Amino acid sequence: MPKTSGGGEGAGTGTPLPDIEIARRVRLEPILPLAKARLGLTPEHLVPFGQHRAKLSLELLDELKARPRGRLVVVSAITPTPVGEGKTTACVGLVDALNRLGVPSLACLREPSQGPVFGMKGGAAGGGRAQVVPMEAINLHFNGDFHAVTAAHNLLAALIDNHLYWGNALGIDPERVVWRRVVDLNDRSLRRVTTGPGNGAGHATGFDITAASEVMAILCLAEDLADLQRRLGRMVVAWRADDTPVTAADLQAAGAMAVLLRDALAPNLVQTLEHNPVLIHGGPFANIAHGCSSLMATRAALALGEVVVTEAGFGADQGLEKFIDIKSRQSGIYPDAVVIVCTLRALRFHGGASREAMNTPDRVALERGLGNLVRQVEVARAFGLEPVVALNALASDSANECARLADCCRGLGVSMTVSDHWARGGEGARPLARRVLERLDAGPVRPGVAPLYPDDLPVEQALRTIATRLYGARDIELAPLAQAQLERLTHQGFGTLPVCIARTQFSFSDDPADGGLVTGHLLRVDELKLSAGAGFVVAICGRVMTLPGLPREPAALAMGLDADGNVIGLA
Amino acid sequence: MPKTSGGGEGAGTGTPLPDIEIARRVRLEPILPLAKARLGLTPEHLVPFGQHRAKLSLELLDELKARPRGRLVVVSAITPTPVGEGKTTACVGLVDALNRLGVPSLACLREPSQGPVFGMKGGAAGGGRAQVVPMEAINLHFNGDFHAVTAAHNLLAALIDNHLYWGNALGIDPERVVWRRVVDLNDRSLRRVTTGPGNGAGHATGFDITAASEVMAILCLAEDLADLQRRLGRMVVAWRADDTPVTAADLQAAGAMAVLLRDALAPNLVQTLEHNPVLIHGGPFANIAHGCSSLMATRAALALGEVVVTEAGFGADQGLEKFIDIKSRQSGIYPDAVVIVCTLRALRFHGGASREAMNTPDRVALERGLGNLVRQVEVARAFGLEPVVALNALASDSANECARLADCCRGLGVSMTVSDHWARGGEGARPLARRVLERLDAGPVRPGVAPLYPDDLPVEQALRTIATRLYGARDIELAPLAQAQLERLTHQGFGTLPVCIARTQFSFSDDPADGGLVTGHLLRVDELKLSAGAGFVVAICGRVMTLPGLPREPAALAMGLDADGNVIGLA
Repeated sequence: MPKTSGGGEGAGTGTPLPDIEIARRVRLEPILPLAKARLGLTPEHLVPFGQHRAKLSLELLDELKARPRGRLVVVSAITPTPVGEGKTTACVGLVDALNRLGVPSLACLREPSQGPVFGMKGGAAGGGRAQVVPMEAINLHFNGDFHAVTAAHNLLAALIDNHLYWGNALGIDPERVVWRRVVDLNDRSLRRVTTGPGNGAGHATGFDITAASEVMAILCLAEDLADLQRRLGRMVVAWRADDTPVTAADLQAAGAMAVLLRDALAPNLVQTLEHNPVLIHGGPFANIAHGCSSLMATRAALALGEVVVTEAGFGADQGLEKFIDIKSRQSGIYPDAVVIVCTLRALRFHGGASREAMNTPDRVALERGLGNLVRQVEVARAFGLEPVVALNALASDSANECARLADCCRGLGVSMTVSDHWARGGEGARPLARRVLERLDAGPVRPGVAPLYPDDLPVEQALRTIATRLYGARDIELAPLAQAQLERLTHQGFGTLPVCIARTQFSFSDDPADGGLVTGHLLRVDELKLSAGAGFVVAICGRVMTLPGLPREPAALAMGLDADGNVIGLA
Repeated sequence: MPKTSGGGEGAGTGTPLPDIEIARRVRLEPILPLAKARLGLTPEHLVPFGQHRAKLSLELLDELKARPRGRLVVVSAITPTPVGEGKTTACVGLVDALNRLGVPSLACLREPSQGPVFGMKGGAAGGGRAQVVPMEAINLHFNGDFHAVTAAHNLLAALIDNHLYWGNALGIDPERVVWRRVVDLNDRSLRRVTTGPGNGAGHATGFDITAASEVMAILCLAEDLADLQRRLGRMVVAWRADDTPVTAADLQAAGAMAVLLRDALAPNLVQTLEHNPVLIHGGPFANIAHGCSSLMATRAALALGEVVVTEAGFGADQGLEKFIDIKSRQSGIYPDAVVIVCTLRALRFHGGASREAMNTPDRVALERGLGNLVRQVEVARAFGLEPVVALNALASDSANECARLADCCRGLGVSMTVSDHWARGGEGARPLARRVLERLDAGPVRPGVAPLYPDDLPVEQALRTIATRLYGARDIELAPLAQAQLERLTHQGFGTLPVCIARTQFSFSDDPADGGLVTGHLLRVDELKLSAGAGFVVAICGRVMTLPGLPREPAALAMGLDADGNVIGLA
């Protein structure tokens, strides 16, 4: 899930204001003057959407390709609790602090999915004084990008069924259509559906959430429009009886899909509460997809700012791994520094404190939980990165525990600081910004940052490398289905694509109940799904929900418009 | 279907340019200066979406409510052929011509659905020299309105199933959930689906096209945001075992739906090729829904211009009837004049010429087909309107046949003129504009324009009135299902809502094979569906497709991006 609450309690505040209230009290700067003053962009470079948001024009994106690049900071985290540990707020706070220090910086973030917005979590654009605005616009339909992905994905599904209906000239095996449909909603009823008996080319299929679509992954990895269209064409949507793949290009669908996605490929410019520029673009979930905002945004930001701060979903074992092994490998853009966000709350939780008790100081649980941080630091080092640890300050932090964390980091030889961006915005993140700048100025510790495993390593070995080196697993085990799929993939020449592991974000294993310290386990790979357009193989490990359900009391029930037409209930 | 090709052959031209080429050769005016110069609107009144389109701000829409109103011209037609007779192009041409004559005028049009765009018809923003631009933007995702309707509609579906899943406190009969899902695509596989067996609250359901959603109807009939939220709450989504209705308000869903629809309620401002202002907003299909662009747009346009030209889908018996009996009745805004567009092609077709032969002069077929025009003129008169007949000029028109049409109109005492807007833009529609101005200046022939039947007439009598007075039917016949539904509706107090008849656009009956001259038939009403939020009862007569399928060669297959990233294949 994209949202991290940043520790909703705040630090040292009494009863904090709701995020939407904090956001409403800040007067936003009109986006065109902001872009001019801060990024040197003129109105022709931008496609405005109202007064406070704009897309970068595709022409500008072409021009920016040639500019010298700034330095990239990836914000990752320890293994999260179900409430999130504050990566988004840390990104926002860090960018605000860097700009306060006189370093022109931008953040690159993912777009929220409407599933969680109306389901469990409400809005997702940071929190407290570390927010991105306008929050209603960002949380609702944001400039149409998710809707474009949904439309393109489902157009392809319709074209496949239509092809079957009109005679199936491509010889698709109707039982082996692997392309499902998507919806940007939490709706468990649609996970498995049977389409139109006797009324078209019906079969057993289902819906995933839009954030899990391969089209979303492609939107986030494409270099430009031509690459987008090419990648769409490469997607494998079905198989023939003779085990040969049928692609979107075979169905002549890639062009129309690219037409639908044309405008969505351009990143969206908005601002922090402190009026610093942020690009929000693309939103693959980090557990079931690769979890990074778009390459288009990263590249543009690196051309426009000296430092770019971006987020990689969930713990470093998931987010940072996918960032480097997938996004960096494909684009050649590697992080220059990494921040690992942690909270004492999460460390206690990993050390055995219950969800109810995790907000109470508990030295014993903390001590045990530090093991999770140690392991995520090792993950960063496995990629050649020396992390900065940022303790996201919460009201429940005790001085005693903070000191223990500092000790632990000293022992690891890791730079650590407390960051109070949630309560104090950029001012609260100044210490973090200084540590990050030190780290950037120190340069790489080792010869360089690199993927964990080489290109062209067979899928099974790549999975084993990640599982044993990063997850502390003793080995992997492929279920018979995954084994059969691997053989087919390999036979068709896809056997050495990088892997994108889909699994729980709450453990190093495939089972959330194993918690944040598990080691020596066996990582079970249940299924392998080819994403030939995105350029990876998705390995599904354990029960991974590709279409969430709504809770008993969905956030939607509290939403509405007040008498003045303002949105209420979007927390 | 919203598109009317305007007689794609053109009149007197050699090989005409494709619409998209004509559109690309015109240099668009930036929308903010255009809005200032032509409508007196400043940038604060508008929410720009790029350089060439903008939404009117909700604040402006509030202000405009108080302004004196211009005069309203509804463009309707004779019964169409499958290629359309040119209502949209006539609207555009008429507005361009009125402005040439010095009368500040705007058009109000429906937004295209992406279903037909990628299916049979390609783009839908007029044609020839009577187009609205930017055509790619209008045809793709247009400012997110359809996507917002889809999202709001499907959120409600998810909330219903979720309510059942978590214990069904409202006591919904799971077999009588009448709220389906929608998709803005042609996809026959989704017409009937069975949701998640053993995986949530599954049941037999299906998808309609977004243009058929009650949410779309509500978006087009709402007076303001408060009315929107109220109407959404009134929608009946399911029934209990005791035959009492369950509404969206009962499910606490209306607020979140209104939040999703907030921005979509504002009309979209674009321009004709001749740089005259057009509001494009909302897109209910005219065969399966009420077929008018939004009330918000009509009201705003009437406050901003002296004459407003809007389109009512298909023949006058469908489009004009629904416009007056539904939209005018609810809003109090009645047309001041009506144009009936006809083509010699369609008259020949109704007179017996085949689709292949209808483009060849045929005096005998024409003579017979004139009966359709006579009947559609009577339809207009039944509402107290004296129509202007516009012959949409086509290359295949013969002087001889034109003269016969003119004779016929003289006999009817109806003003008639040839309009050549497709080939010549506003210049070609000057004669039409002059006739319309004469008509407006003459004022109403009778005491006034009024609905066909009084408010609070029982549904069955309303149906009978429309069928016998407008369709020439001898009577109506309710199928047993419709009869049972009528009893339930009546019992719950919905028995005197106006009716919205869903049926083929190719005849006065419920069967397209009956053609454009049928009389003395029995109109069979198969089903009655309550749209309590929109404020009408939909009467389904005959086979009406609420989710179209794709043809053998969908338009999508020819689409793509060229090397410069331009859209190709969007005809």
